[in-house]
Amino acid sequence: MAQYSATIITIGDEILIGQIVDSNSAWLADFLYHEGFEVKEIRSISDQPEQIKKTLHDAIQQTDLVLLTGGLGPTNDDRTKLALNEYFGGEMVVNEDVLDDIKAFIVKKRGYLQLSETNKAQALVSDNARVLCNPIGTAPVQLFKKMNSIIVSMPGVPFEMKHVFEHQVMPELYKYFSLEAHVYRTFHVVGYPESELAAMLEQWENNLPETLELAYLPSPGVIRLRLKDKINLSDNLDKQASILYNLLGKQIVTEGKEKVEYTLGKILKDSNKSICTAESCTGGLLGHRLTSVAGASIYFKGGITAYSNETKEHLLGVKAATLQKYGAVSEQVAREMATGAARALNTDYAISTTGIAGPTGGTEEKPVGTVWIGIYLDGEVHTKRFLFTHDRMVNIERTATVAMYKMIEWLSKS
Amino acid sequence: MAQYSATIITIGDEILIGQIVDSNSAWLADFLYHEGFEVKEIRSISDQPEQIKKTLHDAIQQTDLVLLTGGLGPTNDDRTKLALNEYFGGEMVVNEDVLDDIKAFIVKKRGYLQLSETNKAQALVSDNARVLCNPIGTAPVQLFKKMNSIIVSMPGVPFEMKHVFEHQVMPELYKYFSLEAHVYRTFHVVGYPESELAAMLEQWENNLPETLELAYLPSPGVIRLRLKDKINLSDNLDKQASILYNLLGKQIVTEGKEKVEYTLGKILKDSNKSICTAESCTGGLLGHRLTSVAGASIYFKGGITAYSNETKEHLLGVKAATLQKYGAVSEQVAREMATGAARALNTDYAISTTGIAGPTGGTEEKPVGTVWIGIYLDGEVHTKRFLFTHDRMVNIERTATVAMYKMIEWLSKS
Repeated sequence: MAQYSATIITIGDEILIGQIVDSNSAWLADFLYHEGFEVKEIRSISDQPEQIKKTLHDAIQQTDLVLLTGGLGPTNDDRTKLALNEYFGGEMVVNEDVLDDIKAFIVKKRGYLQLSETNKAQALVSDNARVLCNPIGTAPVQLFKKMNSIIVSMPGVPFEMKHVFEHQVMPELYKYFSLEAHVYRTFHVVGYPESELAAMLEQWENNLPETLELAYLPSPGVIRLRLKDKINLSDNLDKQASILYNLLGKQIVTEGKEKVEYTLGKILKDSNKSICTAESCTGGLLGHRLTSVAGASIYFKGGITAYSNETKEHLLGVKAATLQKYGAVSEQVAREMATGAARALNTDYAISTTGIAGPTGGTEEKPVGTVWIGIYLDGEVHTKRFLFTHDRMVNIERTATVAMYKMIEWLSKS
Repeated sequence: MAQYSATIITIGDEILIGQIVDSNSAWLADFLYHEGFEVKEIRSISDQPEQIKKTLHDAIQQTDLVLLTGGLGPTNDDRTKLALNEYFGGEMVVNEDVLDDIKAFIVKKRGYLQLSETNKAQALVSDNARVLCNPIGTAPVQLFKKMNSIIVSMPGVPFEMKHVFEHQVMPELYKYFSLEAHVYRTFHVVGYPESELAAMLEQWENNLPETLELAYLPSPGVIRLRLKDKINLSDNLDKQASILYNLLGKQIVTEGKEKVEYTLGKILKDSNKSICTAESCTGGLLGHRLTSVAGASIYFKGGITAYSNETKEHLLGVKAATLQKYGAVSEQVAREMATGAARALNTDYAISTTGIAGPTGGTEEKPVGTVWIGIYLDGEVHTKRFLFTHDRMVNIERTATVAMYKMIEWLSKS
């Protein structure tokens, strides 16, 4: 099977000055990986024509597919289209189909047609390009061929880019590349720092068949291990997966490319159980993660974020005496929060979080990073203490992630 | 004033296969921008030694500072240190200071010293490097000089990288570069799509003095305009800012490099007012954004996420008749949610959100993307309807952002 290579190039100053995180590239890289491409490099550059042309030139020498995002917006600081046209040696022409798309988009958006000079300028494309339609925006999508590479330029607005890539670009790419998706399995391992896990797996990893490739994908609260078969045979993969399960046992909580909120959501949906949250240190992130999954309303009824003791008492029914005796960050409070939420929201399950996210608020006994999680399952409450980091955002994210894994773990035991 | 240039290089497969978003580069780019560096390029590459060396070589030719993150972890797929050592022509040696740091770190983390082979290998560094201490992790920080460039290799774990960059690397960089921070102002503009705003500002922008530079920084719910003075004189900047205020008026909600949750948090803290949330479509994101600000507990008491009608009735006191008559996504429900939350949590202010995030659930009358926001201010409720996009995550994010801006707007009027 041919393995095609790709480069992703993101154009625009907002990434270079750190005003936005480049989430487009991660989304594209994930998509390309699962279609069987190997992404060799991701580059973020300014919209200076010389830099665009030079970067493009390098990428075309090295990879079969070059995806460009951004630099097509309606404002003056966008010069990508002109640079592409120059590089591919064409002429800029008004494309009537693009102009019609833009008109239709504006009418749909505003209810009437008012075409500005800026809008008209967006219909200018290179006559060397194949133009793909963009039904949800005003920036055109252009496809070029040079040497043995395919080059596609897309808008930078994330939802617009994702939509055109999935619906317009990918169907075109199938025509040029005979793609075969990778055979791989992704194991979600909790409870070990990366160095410890690496030491445990060292011998196994060194003896893996040559066709198998292992990657560590650590993120706050979980390390995902991805085992890929480079020649796409699943037998080898499954055999090594069994060995891995023998080595790690229950520390492999689940498998799959999805984030844990998808796995948990599927379990809840399949078992017809409802869930709610009682959040303190996570401040709402747990509810946000659970509801980032489309269709979550089937199992998620809501949650109570109790950032003050008063709210913990009034809305979650945590006893004043418990708060007094053990403090807000304690096993007892985590327990009463989970129980109180399940009662208030009338759900089968509940997750509670209470901890010291930091940077301040830590004590000798309960340093910053101390977190208690409570998991309420049909009347029974499980609790667990964690000690995370000094970083507020990491502590918040890790707590939300670990809480969902813990629920899956306890559900598998019950 | 000298303007120094920089390249950021991120090493590791997890970015190239889209398993993680490269948030390190955005953080570094933001930091460097405010210190007066111009980031020319951000590159994400694999840990193949040849690619590391080639990318490094290009970067050193082109920029004064090269920052590398990642590829230093304890697992087998990290080859960065060896590649760096080869490139800079040194020998790998065990650095006793680094080994001591690692030992101290492990003792602090576990309470006892158990040094694995993996841990020991982390103390290997290039004898061509200046080694900076890493007090919060086991990966070493190396600083190299070549031609006229400074090259720094740092760990990839975000909170570790941020800590060493701020506390160990930046003080070193002050020795090599005479830095002067940029003079700039950032205006947060709401209510216009980018193309419309661009058209409104076209004439003004074309007549800006040559020393001023305008950038559009759009994100869901807001466009930030950054006006920078390239020769660092604030007079020019302030004069043009006044003109901008005349052009856009109240559509400039606030100024500053911070996200809106910081601005709102400051207003609440300064005015000694408390706030809570009543979330439906945002599912907890609004609370999460508010509590991502350290010290939010001073003004944020908590929130109720009501993802079902039942929860809206029971916990927020929304009337069954209101839900029945107007539907959950309506002005009336947004109003009752905000009032109910302020009452339940006993706060001065409250924000409510109710909408159809999608992808399903839309109707002819209320399509996907329809959102109502309610802002409760000391007994009075303001509401506003929005129509966002077809994309679930964009709708959720935009709702949370716009709700906070709306609160600032109404506070400034009241």
